[in-house]
Amino acid sequence: MIQLDRQDSVFTLTMDAGENRWNTTFVREFGKALDEVEASTGPAALVTRSTDAKFFSNGLDLDWVQDPDAHPEGGDREVFGGEFMALMGRIITLPVPTICAINGHAFGAGFMSALCHDIRIMREDRGFICANEMQIGLKIPSPELALFRHKLPANAFFETVQFARRWTGPDAQAAGVVQHVAALETLPELAHQLAEQMAPLGANRELFGDQKERLFGENAILNSPHGAAHLLKHSADYS
Amino acid sequence: MIQLDRQDSVFTLTMDAGENRWNTTFVREFGKALDEVEASTGPAALVTRSTDAKFFSNGLDLDWVQDPDAHPEGGDREVFGGEFMALMGRIITLPVPTICAINGHAFGAGFMSALCHDIRIMREDRGFICANEMQIGLKIPSPELALFRHKLPANAFFETVQFARRWTGPDAQAAGVVQHVAALETLPELAHQLAEQMAPLGANRELFGDQKERLFGENAILNSPHGAAHLLKHSADYS
Amino acid sequence: MIQLDRQDSVFTLTMDAGENRWNTTFVREFGKALDEVEASTGPAALVTRSTDAKFFSNGLDLDWVQDPDAHPEGGDREVFGGEFMALMGRIITLPVPTICAINGHAFGAGFMSALCHDIRIMREDRGFICANEMQIGLKIPSPELALFRHKLPANAFFETVQFARRWTGPDAQAAGVVQHVAALETLPELAHQLAEQMAPLGANRELFGDQKERLFGENAILNSPHGAAHLLKHSADYS
Repeated sequence: MIQLDRQDSVFTLTMDAGENRWNTTFVREFGKALDEVEASTGPAALVTRSTDAKFFSNGLDLDWVQDPDAHPEGGDREVFGGEFMALMGRIITLPVPTICAINGHAFGAGFMSALCHDIRIMREDRGFICANEMQIGLKIPSPELALFRHKLPANAFFETVQFARRWTGPDAQAAGVVQHVAALETLPELAHQLAEQMAPLGANRELFGDQKERLFGENAILNSPHGAAHLLKHSADYS
Repeated sequence: MIQLDRQDSVFTLTMDAGENRWNTTFVREFGKALDEVEASTGPAALVTRSTDAKFFSNGLDLDWVQDPDAHPEGGDREVFGGEFMALMGRIITLPVPTICAINGHAFGAGFMSALCHDIRIMREDRGFICANEMQIGLKIPSPELALFRHKLPANAFFETVQFARRWTGPDAQAAGVVQHVAALETLPELAHQLAEQMAPLGANRELFGDQKERLFGENAILNSPHGAAHLLKHSADYS
Repeated sequence: MIQLDRQDSVFTLTMDAGENRWNTTFVREFGKALDEVEASTGPAALVTRSTDAKFFSNGLDLDWVQDPDAHPEGGDREVFGGEFMALMGRIITLPVPTICAINGHAFGAGFMSALCHDIRIMREDRGFICANEMQIGLKIPSPELALFRHKLPANAFFETVQFARRWTGPDAQAAGVVQHVAALETLPELAHQLAEQMAPLGANRELFGDQKERLFGENAILNSPHGAAHLLKHSADYS
């Protein structure tokens, strides 16, 4: 379902469950792979990828969500919401660089997981990334809204959450939703190269992770009621 | 002054008062058209347009602002500020998709009204959108600053409010201020097509409108002192 | 070290200390030039430039930081942090338009100083702007993080602070980090032209400076817990 491989400083997390839909079992397997990354020391970066020909991750495991008893392999339905969101929170603050190789569709929870990574590379010719809740009549939870808001420019954010825009690779790149596009064949190699380049930043996990916490964590400095000028003028109070 | 037409799921609000300058009468007529949109049910989207050859909306009705007694058709001067701002707040949270067809200049209050719509299409070859307060020596009210900040990327926001930048269609599109540009002849058709596409999202007004309230309303989740990671990790507290 | 010249409405602040590295002496000389700009009246704009062939400003004066006693010309080491940050806070709220002509590398504190200006023009063919703290293992102070966050779109912000991205001129322009690029030979002329165009906005320093305070100062309106719709609907409370 989830494999983790290591080649020198680059960890590769491979999602290998078809459409890679999220249920509690999938969340926990993903979490175990992160445990292994976090237990390592030295330069490190994580690449997340999918083996499917068409999907990066197609969202929640809806069959299981609607009838968990009929799909016991999906795990405990009750704890899913909290555990999934917490895993996303863990990815966004992972103390090593994270690169997401989006080889195909990434919808809903799949898009969220991609966005929690530091850098996104998307297939240039096919596939959409989309937060499709409005389209299918679901409320977007507030933590998910906050994720989109903190990762996307204001205009791309609004189109994403309010109109369920289906971003192609080139459009997503132009709007700042992904950083790179690539042909399907070169996507894995580019992701690996970027991970190798970034891995030295992961060597100092305390520094690299602490800053992510300051950006995205509790009482994030970015969300202070005061603006940059005030903080600069009173820097002793805001180290 | 303001006409509202309906063709299947698409409402078209036509401003037909020359430069379409804002006074209390104009605000109230605009509001009546919104009443009609909001009283409808089923799939719906709103297109706002102007009949003028050169102007979408050229800002406040300055003649009336400076001498309301000489222009009684403009209505009650005392209540204008609050009613205008409240109308803008109503547009930005309208529970159906809103598309603005900017056929010509949109200055000051005209730019504000365009920005309160969900999607903007601008004529590609002529016309400027501009918040010209700094240029003419006026203070931008804080709610207007907040509107620009919540709708524009940080860099486009600053140029808009501090330097009264006159955005052309192509520049506005590149900066994320408008989503589309079109030739003058095709602008109405494109606006109508987009409205037809988006109208199904308006069928569920409670969902579609509630999310706008959560984005732009009281204690908006985006403005929490906490960042995305904290909200994700404590999602039970921030549904 | 720092020269200030005036030609009609355009002040030009020239950094003439090689790599223009920041120590307390440099901060105070820069501040004296700002005193002179602020003491003027009438239309005014500031251009900041460097005489070095390769560097705009290469960051902190590290030799002095590490051994201030061996470099007494750098001034009082103890007060540096607070005085530098306060100077940045002063630039970002300077009540006249400020244009930064980035002729070469701008690293760390050099990038901060550029970003505190209103408008940036960058050499198109060579030179990087970069916040290199993560690269060299230093914590970015929170006021600096806030500065980047308030000036850059969300995606450019994250790459800048978390990955110490070295922005070229064209990439920086595409991402909204600088507003213009130019050939090295035309950079000074373009900066001067922009300053001349913008100088009239500086004539009303109270208005122009007050708005910068409202954007970037204490309890900045942009950082209200409420969104734009709420502020618009309750505009009487948020003038």
